[in-house]
Amino acid sequence: MFDYSFKHLFNYSFKQRTTAVADEKSFHMTPDEFRRHGHAVIDWIADYYSKIESFPVLSQSKPGQLRSQLPPAAPEQSEPFDAILRDIENLILPGITHWQSPNFFAYFPCNASGPAILGDLLSSGFGIQGMLWATSPAATELETHVLDWLVPMLGLPEKFLSTSTGGGVIQDTASSASLCALLAGRERATHYATNARGCTGNLVAYCSTQTHSSVEKAAKIAGLGAENLRGIAVDEKFAIRPGALAQQIAEDKSAGRIPCFVCATVGTTSSNAIDPVPEIARICREHNLWLHVDAAMSGTAALCPEFRYIHAGVEHADSYCFNPHKWMFTNFDCDVFYVADRKALIQTLSVLPEYLRNQATESGAVIDYRDWHIPLGRRFRALKLWFVIRHYGVEGLQHHIREHVASARQFAEWVKEDDRFELAAPVPLNLVCFRLKAGDAANQSLMERFNRSGDLYLTHTKLNDRFTLRLSVGQTNTKHRHVERAWKRIQEEAGR
Amino acid sequence: MFDYSFKHLFNYSFKQRTTAVADEKSFHMTPDEFRRHGHAVIDWIADYYSKIESFPVLSQSKPGQLRSQLPPAAPEQSEPFDAILRDIENLILPGITHWQSPNFFAYFPCNASGPAILGDLLSSGFGIQGMLWATSPAATELETHVLDWLVPMLGLPEKFLSTSTGGGVIQDTASSASLCALLAGRERATHYATNARGCTGNLVAYCSTQTHSSVEKAAKIAGLGAENLRGIAVDEKFAIRPGALAQQIAEDKSAGRIPCFVCATVGTTSSNAIDPVPEIARICREHNLWLHVDAAMSGTAALCPEFRYIHAGVEHADSYCFNPHKWMFTNFDCDVFYVADRKALIQTLSVLPEYLRNQATESGAVIDYRDWHIPLGRRFRALKLWFVIRHYGVEGLQHHIREHVASARQFAEWVKEDDRFELAAPVPLNLVCFRLKAGDAANQSLMERFNRSGDLYLTHTKLNDRFTLRLSVGQTNTKHRHVERAWKRIQEEAGR
Repeated sequence: MFDYSFKHLFNYSFKQRTTAVADEKSFHMTPDEFRRHGHAVIDWIADYYSKIESFPVLSQSKPGQLRSQLPPAAPEQSEPFDAILRDIENLILPGITHWQSPNFFAYFPCNASGPAILGDLLSSGFGIQGMLWATSPAATELETHVLDWLVPMLGLPEKFLSTSTGGGVIQDTASSASLCALLAGRERATHYATNARGCTGNLVAYCSTQTHSSVEKAAKIAGLGAENLRGIAVDEKFAIRPGALAQQIAEDKSAGRIPCFVCATVGTTSSNAIDPVPEIARICREHNLWLHVDAAMSGTAALCPEFRYIHAGVEHADSYCFNPHKWMFTNFDCDVFYVADRKALIQTLSVLPEYLRNQATESGAVIDYRDWHIPLGRRFRALKLWFVIRHYGVEGLQHHIREHVASARQFAEWVKEDDRFELAAPVPLNLVCFRLKAGDAANQSLMERFNRSGDLYLTHTKLNDRFTLRLSVGQTNTKHRHVERAWKRIQEEAGR
Repeated sequence: MFDYSFKHLFNYSFKQRTTAVADEKSFHMTPDEFRRHGHAVIDWIADYYSKIESFPVLSQSKPGQLRSQLPPAAPEQSEPFDAILRDIENLILPGITHWQSPNFFAYFPCNASGPAILGDLLSSGFGIQGMLWATSPAATELETHVLDWLVPMLGLPEKFLSTSTGGGVIQDTASSASLCALLAGRERATHYATNARGCTGNLVAYCSTQTHSSVEKAAKIAGLGAENLRGIAVDEKFAIRPGALAQQIAEDKSAGRIPCFVCATVGTTSSNAIDPVPEIARICREHNLWLHVDAAMSGTAALCPEFRYIHAGVEHADSYCFNPHKWMFTNFDCDVFYVADRKALIQTLSVLPEYLRNQATESGAVIDYRDWHIPLGRRFRALKLWFVIRHYGVEGLQHHIREHVASARQFAEWVKEDDRFELAAPVPLNLVCFRLKAGDAANQSLMERFNRSGDLYLTHTKLNDRFTLRLSVGQTNTKHRHVERAWKRIQEEAGR
């Protein structure tokens, strides 16, 4: 068992009483109370996962249902912890959509696992704020180190290593990563003048019509404007057409605009389409455009050598992100963002007020992650990622990713074999886009019926303007039997 | 004790086996393993807090120290959980700067508490992603409800209530809140044309020379440019001079620029200065500028009626934020951001792709918080805030805030009584800015000596260009005796 003695830590020169003095009034939870209540919460979560399949996946709660059960004002006096925990069960649980149910096939997964939850618990317990190396060296160094581990694990280029010109940082989401990439591209294209003087209405950026909506949001935030983000046409596989991209760039340049950024997607949200990154990269190099590759969900697949082809061309990207909080068993939030040239990112986002100056920073020997993203403060998120990688080992991660891909492909076969249904897009990995041939209304009604049943949960998109169902396989505990059951339920419901 | 039976939850129509099938290979942590390891982690954290005063507050780690002890590559095979937890103690702990030590007086606090850690643990356990109401109604409704609780608790205007025209949302940090406020101000001033066509170099925003650096970062990100953010001069209390603000706005307008945003601060980072919000608000109303009030650290003080005067004028603000993760015992990240007109914020940040459409959203009866901030995905952060408010009650929160303010004021008295020292700024709440009269070098050396000792940790700023020490009282477990000891150590070190 684990050794709690802390004995090696008692060698510091300054000794002090380590138990609380009892003469001071306090409303704080003592360490012993924390221990008792903490065990109860852990037990509650363990029980929750044991029984998670008994809950309706999509919450059956009505708008306002929770609020109507809560007191209109905050309590004046302290309430016992047991009462709070009872309300978790009685009030909160019915309003939970169970993302961790193995029958959750909606959107993209946002999966969790035991080691991730416990790593995150330690992060909450330490309660450090890692804005600077000095404010907890271990938080910065573990993050840098684990993100360096992931570079060869995913077959990413060496330039993303912190020991090279680049480096990785944990962001909250791929939305924020895309925004940071766009900002760095904006600044590089304008020689860092936009940071000083602002946008002047002539910068343009590029993505496909299938790119995640966060890139449009980023174009608005960054002051480019949504109209200056070109949504390039896609081919029959919903991947960007490089020819159309090249043509649009040429048009913009001849009109005196300044192209600065391209976002390519490895695994679009709608249909898991994979943009042709090598061709896009060639165009970006020709015009010196910042190339960001968004592999938020699908990047995890590259843990398996047989799927690593999805990263072809990423060796020419300026930045790249994927979300361990989607498919790599690491609970939200954890987006991993790499840049090839960390100086460009830091120069874009760095602001150094006096109150953050310190010796370690001045020495230049350390990373201060506050300069790598939008917020100043930051949580110790590397812990959960480290816990996941060590608990599973590369082998364990690969095993479960392969299971998910195999199940999704089997599901696609079943769809093909049923005359009432059709596949709506290729199935490169773990997302199946399919539909009844009977038309939009039939598909929408079908989806709403089994979602309402609580048996499973999946969501839709539109492809070629047709209502399309999406079955996304990636929840931690989803096994082949869950996918099989989902297909049976879908067939059953379609037969009604 | 808490009832684990889940009995009321077994009434759903669909019944399914709830135990895992043993015939499938799995690397996942089972619920029973989670229970065992979870108890060990809880015990570890309880022990950590029992002994936290025995550790040097500022980590004594050297650059590269942790990384040199970690394997260069990720493990191929799974490692036992006990081994991972041992490394927390042996490798990670020495690299922690103990923000939760009661002897942490640096920066602003980033405090935590037992109920917050356990609320956050449940959030990790549920593992939901609350981007939409439908993806966990309880997450959205609890957030709205608890943030409505806080409006009267802090003496904030009713227009910030979700039942009025406004509403609150949890952001990661005040940096992100400021950015969202600036964006909403930018859009309102340009009739939402900037989102469409981009910035055109003529927008200007205002803050003081003492405003947090995140506002400069926001001006860069939002495409205004740092040169178009005016740092208005401050008075002898380091609060903005309203006359200078009015004059600058008039100059900008007569030069054809478009003023759009003012950030006022209640409790600046350097010295806890409180900008004159009523006068600033009058100017903003005259020119129709978005007024954001940043009370990141000090806002919490308004829980006590005797400190509520700090919110004078906030009734005229368009947005406001404070950070329960700083001084309200809620672990990072938890910034609470209110707007008076939620439509303006939503219109600024909303993007609705097909794959996020759903019945609840279309009905207009629910809040989808994805439209209230930069990221799309979001964690269930309201849980920890709810736990804190219920565990402490308003009374408990007030008690500890009053303790902190009283200790800081006592410290200021001691400084005044010692001829070697002087106060460098007023002490309205819990931050004391002080210095040796002997000059910058003496102060820097003094600070480095006791920080290096590990006994306490405080940081510096510059006020009137002079190196100034900051003692920030706000860590959860900081009692008067810790502040007293800090002063003795400072006196002792100054005497050497």
